[in-house]
Amino acid sequence: MTDRFVLDLLGVMAYGELSAFERLSSDARFSPTLHDRAVLGRMAVLEFEHFELVVARLADLGYEAESVMRPFQASIDSFHDRTRPADWYESIMKAYVIDTISADFYTAVSQLLDTPTRDLVAEIQAPGEALVLQGRLRKMLDDEPRLASRLALWGRRLVGEALTQAQRVSIESGFLPEESSFRGELMADLTKQHSRRMSQLGLTA
Amino acid sequence: MTDRFVLDLLGVMAYGELSAFERLSSDARFSPTLHDRAVLGRMAVLEFEHFELVVARLADLGYEAESVMRPFQASIDSFHDRTRPADWYESIMKAYVIDTISADFYTAVSQLLDTPTRDLVAEIQAPGEALVLQGRLRKMLDDEPRLASRLALWGRRLVGEALTQAQRVSIESGFLPEESSFRGELMADLTKQHSRRMSQLGLTA
Repeated sequence: MTDRFVLDLLGVMAYGELSAFERLSSDARFSPTLHDRAVLGRMAVLEFEHFELVVARLADLGYEAESVMRPFQASIDSFHDRTRPADWYESIMKAYVIDTISADFYTAVSQLLDTPTRDLVAEIQAPGEALVLQGRLRKMLDDEPRLASRLALWGRRLVGEALTQAQRVSIESGFLPEESSFRGELMADLTKQHSRRMSQLGLTA
Repeated sequence: MTDRFVLDLLGVMAYGELSAFERLSSDARFSPTLHDRAVLGRMAVLEFEHFELVVARLADLGYEAESVMRPFQASIDSFHDRTRPADWYESIMKAYVIDTISADFYTAVSQLLDTPTRDLVAEIQAPGEALVLQGRLRKMLDDEPRLASRLALWGRRLVGEALTQAQRVSIESGFLPEESSFRGELMADLTKQHSRRMSQLGLTA
């Protein structure tokens, strides 16, 4: 019998990756150049491959991905509906913010779980994609410095929604009980790391 | 110096695959079940991998994919704009019709070209995806027989647009000169094969 928290983490990750794949590949179409479309397409494909890794792990544990993902579907869909990018620049920013905050969140939570789960999270949340996105954002801000204030505002909106989402998922799944100091510390840490990344981009978080 | 017709075929295939990836993965989101979303997502990923195979072949020949794809961008984008699926059922039908007609078209044209190009086309246009889509369409029509007349109509619209598109691409690229009997025969053959597939689905083409 697999720990319920492990299943919940795998379920939220699987659905998160599947959604990220669909959103990123749809948004890729609006890239300013064919080169950007190919780069974003490749990243979307990576998200899908991560989804498949989680599905394979669930199968090994004897679970069907659909039933494990379903409890998280409504809240992740609603998160995406509340954070629709207005254009390509906002898509890239969203992909970067969500990718990095999710990685921090999953990594922190997986520390409470078994080694195979921790290893899977480490494999999936490797920083390759985030570095590509960071590079693209830097270039974008160099080319069009006027984007900075709009993207800073968008970044604040995204982090607010992402933290609300992380708390909701934690409560729904129960892996971070309300009274635990771990949850408060984790939220503070996610915020701090996000602010550091925004500063690195020259944006005020 | 690579034959211009080879470059044109690779260019239209590359952009066709990249567009198919983006359209299919965006449409996947509207699938009726999580299982269908995963199946369509996997197919979209295959299209992207085909795109990457063509890009790699172009690189081997010393060409950048962007410049080779660009001449076909406007007409393929316009084709997709003229054939927007109204719902998920129409998306699957579109993916099936376009996948199979493109495969027939690329395969026929590649017979006029060198062996490496023919091999690449054969590798990319293998019938695996078409079979998955065909199976999904059969199930859909079994479950909801009322869809048949709408999908038959949609299939006729798609084949008309696809043949117009194939002729436009042939003329633009010049690989099938207007006076050649090959072009007329090819168009007749594409129509015939499409009709056979529609009959297999129980639809009147």
